[in-house]
Amino acid sequence: MNKNYIVPNEWSIIENDFDAENVEASESLFSIGNGALGQRANFEEDYSGKTFQGSYIGGIYYPDKTRVGWWKNGYPEYFAKVLNAPNWIGIHIKINEVIFDLNTCKISDFKRELNMKEGWLSRSFNAELPNGNKIEVFAKRFISIEFNEVGAIEYKIKAINFSGEITFSPYVDAGIMNEDTNYDEFFWEILEVVEGENSGCILSKTLKTEFHVSTAMQIALTLNNEEIFPVQQTIVEDKKLTYSYAVDVKEGDVTTIFKFGSYTTSLNYKIEELNSASLSNVQNAKELGFEKLLDFQIKSWQKIWKTADIVIEGDIEAQQGIRFNIFQLNQTYMGTDARLNIGPKGFTGEKYGGSTYWDTEAYCIPFYMATKDASVAKNLLLYRYNQLNKAIENAEKLGFKNGAALYPMVTMNGEECHNEWEITFEEIHRNGAMVYGIYNYVNFTQDFDYVVTNGLEVMIAIARFWHQRANWSDAKKQFVILGVTGPNEYENNINNNFYTNYLAKWCIEYTVDCLNKVQHNFTEDFDRILDKTNLTIEETYNWLKVADNMYFPFNKEKQVFLQQDGFLDKEIIPVEKLDKSQRPINQKWSWDRILRSCYIKQADVLQGMYLFEDRFSKEEVERHFDFYEPLTVHESSLSPCVHSILAASIDRMPKAYEQYLRTARLDLDDYNHEVHEGCHITSMAGTWMSVVQGFGGMRVWENGLLSFNPQIPKEWKSYSFTINFRGSIIKVYKSQNECKFINESDKEIKMFVDKKEVLIPANQLIIL
Amino acid sequence: MNKNYIVPNEWSIIENDFDAENVEASESLFSIGNGALGQRANFEEDYSGKTFQGSYIGGIYYPDKTRVGWWKNGYPEYFAKVLNAPNWIGIHIKINEVIFDLNTCKISDFKRELNMKEGWLSRSFNAELPNGNKIEVFAKRFISIEFNEVGAIEYKIKAINFSGEITFSPYVDAGIMNEDTNYDEFFWEILEVVEGENSGCILSKTLKTEFHVSTAMQIALTLNNEEIFPVQQTIVEDKKLTYSYAVDVKEGDVTTIFKFGSYTTSLNYKIEELNSASLSNVQNAKELGFEKLLDFQIKSWQKIWKTADIVIEGDIEAQQGIRFNIFQLNQTYMGTDARLNIGPKGFTGEKYGGSTYWDTEAYCIPFYMATKDASVAKNLLLYRYNQLNKAIENAEKLGFKNGAALYPMVTMNGEECHNEWEITFEEIHRNGAMVYGIYNYVNFTQDFDYVVTNGLEVMIAIARFWHQRANWSDAKKQFVILGVTGPNEYENNINNNFYTNYLAKWCIEYTVDCLNKVQHNFTEDFDRILDKTNLTIEETYNWLKVADNMYFPFNKEKQVFLQQDGFLDKEIIPVEKLDKSQRPINQKWSWDRILRSCYIKQADVLQGMYLFEDRFSKEEVERHFDFYEPLTVHESSLSPCVHSILAASIDRMPKAYEQYLRTARLDLDDYNHEVHEGCHITSMAGTWMSVVQGFGGMRVWENGLLSFNPQIPKEWKSYSFTINFRGSIIKVYKSQNECKFINESDKEIKMFVDKKEVLIPANQLIIL
Repeated sequence: MNKNYIVPNEWSIIENDFDAENVEASESLFSIGNGALGQRANFEEDYSGKTFQGSYIGGIYYPDKTRVGWWKNGYPEYFAKVLNAPNWIGIHIKINEVIFDLNTCKISDFKRELNMKEGWLSRSFNAELPNGNKIEVFAKRFISIEFNEVGAIEYKIKAINFSGEITFSPYVDAGIMNEDTNYDEFFWEILEVVEGENSGCILSKTLKTEFHVSTAMQIALTLNNEEIFPVQQTIVEDKKLTYSYAVDVKEGDVTTIFKFGSYTTSLNYKIEELNSASLSNVQNAKELGFEKLLDFQIKSWQKIWKTADIVIEGDIEAQQGIRFNIFQLNQTYMGTDARLNIGPKGFTGEKYGGSTYWDTEAYCIPFYMATKDASVAKNLLLYRYNQLNKAIENAEKLGFKNGAALYPMVTMNGEECHNEWEITFEEIHRNGAMVYGIYNYVNFTQDFDYVVTNGLEVMIAIARFWHQRANWSDAKKQFVILGVTGPNEYENNINNNFYTNYLAKWCIEYTVDCLNKVQHNFTEDFDRILDKTNLTIEETYNWLKVADNMYFPFNKEKQVFLQQDGFLDKEIIPVEKLDKSQRPINQKWSWDRILRSCYIKQADVLQGMYLFEDRFSKEEVERHFDFYEPLTVHESSLSPCVHSILAASIDRMPKAYEQYLRTARLDLDDYNHEVHEGCHITSMAGTWMSVVQGFGGMRVWENGLLSFNPQIPKEWKSYSFTINFRGSIIKVYKSQNECKFINESDKEIKMFVDKKEVLIPANQLIIL
Repeated sequence: MNKNYIVPNEWSIIENDFDAENVEASESLFSIGNGALGQRANFEEDYSGKTFQGSYIGGIYYPDKTRVGWWKNGYPEYFAKVLNAPNWIGIHIKINEVIFDLNTCKISDFKRELNMKEGWLSRSFNAELPNGNKIEVFAKRFISIEFNEVGAIEYKIKAINFSGEITFSPYVDAGIMNEDTNYDEFFWEILEVVEGENSGCILSKTLKTEFHVSTAMQIALTLNNEEIFPVQQTIVEDKKLTYSYAVDVKEGDVTTIFKFGSYTTSLNYKIEELNSASLSNVQNAKELGFEKLLDFQIKSWQKIWKTADIVIEGDIEAQQGIRFNIFQLNQTYMGTDARLNIGPKGFTGEKYGGSTYWDTEAYCIPFYMATKDASVAKNLLLYRYNQLNKAIENAEKLGFKNGAALYPMVTMNGEECHNEWEITFEEIHRNGAMVYGIYNYVNFTQDFDYVVTNGLEVMIAIARFWHQRANWSDAKKQFVILGVTGPNEYENNINNNFYTNYLAKWCIEYTVDCLNKVQHNFTEDFDRILDKTNLTIEETYNWLKVADNMYFPFNKEKQVFLQQDGFLDKEIIPVEKLDKSQRPINQKWSWDRILRSCYIKQADVLQGMYLFEDRFSKEEVERHFDFYEPLTVHESSLSPCVHSILAASIDRMPKAYEQYLRTARLDLDDYNHEVHEGCHITSMAGTWMSVVQGFGGMRVWENGLLSFNPQIPKEWKSYSFTINFRGSIIKVYKSQNECKFINESDKEIKMFVDKKEVLIPANQLIIL
């Protein structure tokens, strides 16, 4: 059964009952972050029930020793893991000497809220402790976007039925572990514990990677809103710094503790400056005060929503779902730092490790590109550009040469860290996504300069990879690509995956196109690039031989491209005829059975038709959709959005809406019973795509033209979305009988709606 | 570089120098065993250099928790491991208070010998200790075949240049671990340490499996051949029992310690009887005395060699190599206990775990069947019969039903314990080997009764598996078998592996043939079997539909069966054109590169042609040999023997001999630089096959006829081999210009030599 305890609300995620069974799920769902750091919604006070503690800092990772059953040559020695970072949110609380712990109290009027409009998390409730003392608690917390190393907590306790002593013991704890260690090892070494008056910090470093992090806290207290200065007792332990304050209260008194926390890291500071920087961060935060910090936060989120919001009328759950996705994507990545990327769990959990998958290029770039400044998508491209040498090394380990690159399946720093041969070595289509990301960016932004300055080097290395990876088949008299895993990971080590072969051919052709353009328009750059990459024109001819003679498996009778060689040897039984007890097949069937079945985990041939829609006729898309959709089990969160978009493009709105529903509230309703491990961050971009590219029909074509074809599910009253197109803010509104385009910029915008050209003057609205 | 420090000798394995670098390799090569238990040739005295300690008891295993990187449904939770057993060989020795340790002494005149004719291991050498004391040492040890729970040590020390005290501290140590634990866990619990006068024992049990083992020792000492009774000091530790004896010696004195050891296990005794049984074993051994025990040992080996020896004249290394293989195979398995089997490392190491692979049916049964009584091969078949229910459960876990069985890839007790999906779930051809083992046994022994009483149940379960595993291909209009790994494990998840499809079809047909035979000749049994297996004749018609319409990949142009679908899409470059720096490819190439290459790890299509030689013309075999041999890298010890046999069968003796050489001294010359981990026991049967089936051309056909076609490598003067054919001892002698057959039995024997019928009267010799 799905969990659905989240209260529907347009702008907030709300939980109205305290249920220990939901604590870990809520810790994921109510996570907060600012793109640079983030944390699960763990309680500040002690909690003795089941909990999954997690605080994370972007770019700080640990290379855990790989664990395998059977080693294969080429496996990476290490698996880079998202690292649980020192905890600065914790506050031990005692009421008249009794530890305050929700697991031992009677709780009433519980409410937890994640306010997505303003970017804060709060809890309020009444609690009766084992000693009979009753308190009313209100706690609010956020991670500042404006000051992106800082977070703040306001924690209020009202004494309802007693007088006595409340002890607050805020702490910084660096003695934390990862839940997913391979060998139960500790990943941090503690270097220094610095105590002081109401503030202090711990300097620690990660083992192996030697990232240094200073974690600071600053405390302030009020009693009935008057600042108080109780005696501070300091407890210094090996890995933990605690300050303890006892406050005498009378019945009705409200005591508040403010706690400001900060991380500073060696990514941004010299090691010797880390402690002073973190201490000064929390000092400044305290001086500014909680409320002023919160004002900044609200303004930051206003700015984000202005170019990213989607409004849905007539379906409050859909409204909440889509905003949750946009909110989490922004919490995970802000695009200001080209060293960071979008991990599959963001800052909401540890699982999978690594931070960067092909999800970034295939799903996330479209979202960030259309809702933020072009520099954000460019930073995502630069991330890969900066890792090009590692991708070349990675390919060399697998026997490639001459500067061929294979980007890793999963990475933190450019090195591969996944270790299943069928994925690590064979799911090579990811390399195509790298080039597609550039192509997509150039189409959307028209910033061809990026190709000249950076992109071409990546594209050349990838073209070289495809050229070397394909081989001539004497039997087929064409080039083939053997032994791959396509996007549909329910097939391994297959030959001539249509999607992979198509991308390979396209990558070579697009690279050569770009090379020609650069040769004619940027002569100096052309020479520089050829020189840097040791490329000759002759080499590109050899690439083109492969591209021009690429084999694609095709069935004449059905007139469909086959997912791979031999696909029609399978027993073809549509998913709907499969007994429900057998689903999901990845939990019910052994791997060999899944592999030899016809069932498709996620869009594969259809993924190709989605990416290159302009190269297939509507009839072709329909034919392939009708062949593959019935065989697709969508057991990946990245699958339904592509089917939804394609369904909309062939005017099948009921199907498009059905597929959209499968991702829209994946985490909020916990379809897969795993939200306690963290949220599916990257697939959230897919949901956004379903609305904007699917229902809205937004496309930016290779010639740079923008087009829309808005349709609306019959279940909705209206929806609207906003995009940032080359600096112009465009809002698209679609109701059951109206379609509006609003140009909020100072420039005239040309677009195509349902294939007809439309011009919208600056700051104007057009109704179609 | 290969190691080749072993001194060539017809009957012994000899090492003439002490080199610390060779200690672990020699510990493997000089291993001793009696089919029920065995041990690496570890030193009795302390040794502080690199050593790999190992004592093993057949049938005593530990299910270590599986370690994987990424879990797949259907993986077994445990991996059954050969278990390092309590050590009873150890004797701490001090000379005038200085520990005697070869690693700290000057050593001269070192000689180690494994006498294969008589079945004992000895060491002799002079040593100068750090204190200047010089001693002469002679140590001899064996594991008794006659009393198969017992072993004996004679350990002599002569004081060369000193008088003083020699302290012997023999012990039993149950505080041992496996080198290959997955989680560094201890596998044994110690229950009781029993001390006594000159004898004692430790009762321990394995965790999880609860095998109970009592390990006993009994000590006797002599000074200059007179029994002495020095004071015994007893040291009882948690997991170890030590007796200490100080002997005063004068220069020239010879002190000898005799140590008798014994294991008794809960496989054969009630738990409460284990200690008294082990103590009584060592007591009896001591009373019999070392020399008498040794006489028994010599007789036991005489009996073994009588029906198993191969004599090679003109090549002493070949002679030593083949006897080493026959010797080790006999040390590993004697065939008296149907609960035991032949592990890939026998009692010489731990690696791979499990004890039973398809090696048993494909390689070992032919050897044991032809060199021992028929009951031995029958016991190997019964081992599988007794595990049929587990094989049915194993298939159920993978989605099969109705009594279909899939025998495990690796097992101890019938449960699968391997965990690579491409092997565990997909290398299903092993199921065919189970039926082939029965077929082979019936042809050789004419014991069809076994089919009636046991074999058919196994065959029915396997026919059901193949019937369910194949599926109808609409594209090919035939039945296909998708997603398998063939014997060539350098291909994974391929479709329509010729060998697998061929075995599947054959298994069904042979099962139906046998069913028909039983129906006509054993009516009651027929009803019993149908009843027990819930089989109907209709079901067998469905099986036959699959067998009759099985698809085999075939290339018309080249007129060869293809190893699998799409094999000719590969880049085909013969192994000889591959740069030597790239070999062995399994150490140089990443797995994906190996998979998409044309290179073949071990015989695959050719394995099928070897098993079913009578169904292919000589021209067909030649054509396939010429196609596949050049692509075969033989990176499995099980490969060259099959190629050698096929080469001989198509009259290519130089090739046959070249392939024979690749296995003949695999361990003695340590081709693969891994003999320190243990010997390749099962592949030793392959070498035997190369001589007997390859050079000797021995075949027993489906109609029961015995035939030979002896050829001889030009490098040899002559060779002869002995087989036990249905109780008759036949010796085949072949020199460069003569061929003799000697019938050592009381019955006339009919055979075919080079297709001509030959009759040899009882106890006669025939020269051809």
